[in-house]
Amino acid sequence: MTAINRRRLLGLGAAGAAGVAAAGAGAFATRSVLEGPPPAAAATTSDPVSFYGERQAGIVTPAQDRLHFVSFDVITKKREELVELLQEWTAAAARMTQGKDAGTFGAVGGAPEAPPDDTGEALGLPASGLTLTIGFGPSLFDDRFGLAAKKPAALADLPKFPGEDLKPEISGGDICIQACAHDPQVAVHAIRNLARIGFGRVSIRWSQLGFGRTSSTSRSQATPRNLFGFKDGTNNLKLEDAALLKDQLWVAPGDGPAWMAGGSYMVTRKIRMNIETWDRTSLVEQEEIFGRDKGEGAPMGKKREFDVIDFAAKKPDGTPVIPMDSHVRLAHPSTHGNAHLLRRGYNYVEGSDGLGRLDAGLFFIAYQRDPHKQYVPIQMELARKDKLNEYIKHISSGLFACPPGLRDAGDYWGRALFA
Amino acid sequence: MTAINRRRLLGLGAAGAAGVAAAGAGAFATRSVLEGPPPAAAATTSDPVSFYGERQAGIVTPAQDRLHFVSFDVITKKREELVELLQEWTAAAARMTQGKDAGTFGAVGGAPEAPPDDTGEALGLPASGLTLTIGFGPSLFDDRFGLAAKKPAALADLPKFPGEDLKPEISGGDICIQACAHDPQVAVHAIRNLARIGFGRVSIRWSQLGFGRTSSTSRSQATPRNLFGFKDGTNNLKLEDAALLKDQLWVAPGDGPAWMAGGSYMVTRKIRMNIETWDRTSLVEQEEIFGRDKGEGAPMGKKREFDVIDFAAKKPDGTPVIPMDSHVRLAHPSTHGNAHLLRRGYNYVEGSDGLGRLDAGLFFIAYQRDPHKQYVPIQMELARKDKLNEYIKHISSGLFACPPGLRDAGDYWGRALFA
Repeated sequence: MTAINRRRLLGLGAAGAAGVAAAGAGAFATRSVLEGPPPAAAATTSDPVSFYGERQAGIVTPAQDRLHFVSFDVITKKREELVELLQEWTAAAARMTQGKDAGTFGAVGGAPEAPPDDTGEALGLPASGLTLTIGFGPSLFDDRFGLAAKKPAALADLPKFPGEDLKPEISGGDICIQACAHDPQVAVHAIRNLARIGFGRVSIRWSQLGFGRTSSTSRSQATPRNLFGFKDGTNNLKLEDAALLKDQLWVAPGDGPAWMAGGSYMVTRKIRMNIETWDRTSLVEQEEIFGRDKGEGAPMGKKREFDVIDFAAKKPDGTPVIPMDSHVRLAHPSTHGNAHLLRRGYNYVEGSDGLGRLDAGLFFIAYQRDPHKQYVPIQMELARKDKLNEYIKHISSGLFACPPGLRDAGDYWGRALFA
Repeated sequence: MTAINRRRLLGLGAAGAAGVAAAGAGAFATRSVLEGPPPAAAATTSDPVSFYGERQAGIVTPAQDRLHFVSFDVITKKREELVELLQEWTAAAARMTQGKDAGTFGAVGGAPEAPPDDTGEALGLPASGLTLTIGFGPSLFDDRFGLAAKKPAALADLPKFPGEDLKPEISGGDICIQACAHDPQVAVHAIRNLARIGFGRVSIRWSQLGFGRTSSTSRSQATPRNLFGFKDGTNNLKLEDAALLKDQLWVAPGDGPAWMAGGSYMVTRKIRMNIETWDRTSLVEQEEIFGRDKGEGAPMGKKREFDVIDFAAKKPDGTPVIPMDSHVRLAHPSTHGNAHLLRRGYNYVEGSDGLGRLDAGLFFIAYQRDPHKQYVPIQMELARKDKLNEYIKHISSGLFACPPGLRDAGDYWGRALFA
């Protein structure tokens, strides 16, 4: 038995059943097989997102609800073993994003004497909008694999920011994979199977679950809230911003090595929130720190979330309506020569910290054309001046080069880099 | 401004809008207000579940997809402060389970100079089937609050089980609250606000997020899968099993102190899974360990998940079709004088463990009439003989007495206990 569609095992849902009726003999094929490639943005939270395309999925794809992120150390010293792994990963990713098992001999189709090609916990679950996005960290370009000459300048280490308290064991890494899906079981299954396939060649350095998105990447999505209770990412770059995406998100030919043209750079920051302290802060102070009202998310002095911010407005006493040290002012593109980020962060909670406090916060992910021209100046300003710093601590950091998308099944993750 | 419905802030969804059209002036009331109390089982994953009733919600309620569980130490020494907290918690729980803010002065309705009555991160989100279920741990019945005479015999500490490796800092606790919801942001919001309300009177001892349910508690639900990839809880007690629930789930009058009649006892166990080792085990061995096939979940020798298990069946060579040390045989009610459990467990992933492995497993929750007659004999048999023990480790344990449900808004959590 080969190429089992996961939906087969629990019977087909309504949409699948309709497809089957139309297709006759292809009773267990996926919708994508029946109807051609799925769109870049899935129509429902069950549907697949296309794995192939000019760009990697999972960047401008409307942000899915759940995240499992992993950073690997490469433990093989052999370049050819790493390339082979990237090819195997690509094949598994192409299958899993379409709602299939990780391998052609899945949990129920394999030889009984061998470990299954798939771990099984997503059997019966639809594709759930799964995207898998790969990135290569600065450390991959050391002397192990002959990649030093291909290291982009944009992948130079981030500077140290004031106040950060980074833990090396949950920072950095040679290769990252971001799994986003509407069902966390599907995201966890994908990362777990990629880790399984990588056995002996890579080792998990750190991984991160995010239970709820804190960003919209499309105007079709409502702005979600972070664990401070505020809407987050109102002015985020969105997939509809074609000119800005070209200018600020995607690496252009000539920006650096050819293998990154059409890709994007990802910055990750795990930001612990002191939510107990925050929760004892007055509403007026919370709103002054963000520079927005809490309920609607409108800039101070305005009524609605998307009203244009008036940084020049003054109160009758001459002080600015939007405080000089407010988050919205310090982070705004107008403060940084129009530097934008495409954020795709997630809320996290990981038990408690032994001091009676929730271990919770924001796993920040941002994509951009050049982190040293975008994330770095923005974060340096925030790290120096943001009043929010009293309530947060950056505890991990990652920087990864995410190459462009794959053309077709003959292509694989990192082909141009290793060519 | 009082009693804000969270949905108001982002406009009403389709169902809410229909209700508004019917209700005219009650433009921002909840559906439950418009149409009477919500049913014990929500019709959709957005709807509220009734907070009042003969039983606490969150036990036989069809298991919601996500969990946030918290265990508190009581830090006040004053009985009246604890009672006051339980009253405040009850009021907040009654509101939040119906999709409202935690307090009457929510994140947008309070005095600006005061911290908001609600932390805000669930603003705009529907009730999402939220249930909040309280339990009292053995340690609450020490000499601090004069409750020693009211301690049920069934709340005696669990014995030590072979092979367990319990960490005290994530075990036990005076009071637990289980938050289940279809949206994790709603479950996290509820626990976070209860912790906020408890400031100075309780301290979080431990908390646990679960991203995906591993049990069905109703025949209307498909059986989900654990992180070993197997269906879990096929023979779980379900809300439709009226006679069994009466006999095995609910505490009867005369079982112990009167305040627990109509309640149930909860056992929690955090079970770390060595999933990397499991993933290198052959399919046939995995299936023999569980005693079921992986794809369908059928007992060995049968075709379908719910086929009756034939423990007497022999292979041609005379050995049992279902191995003597298989999980399904050792855990089956027929092995334990018909002892059943109602399980409501959740899969968890919490990053990696520093050795390149995912820190992942199952947060087991089970309800029953008497843990010493149900969980203890079952787990003792499993701990001694189950082949699955090579792949799992119990790392935390909790035991809690969950009283019956609340009659109405005049009642509060623990009233009969503290009466």
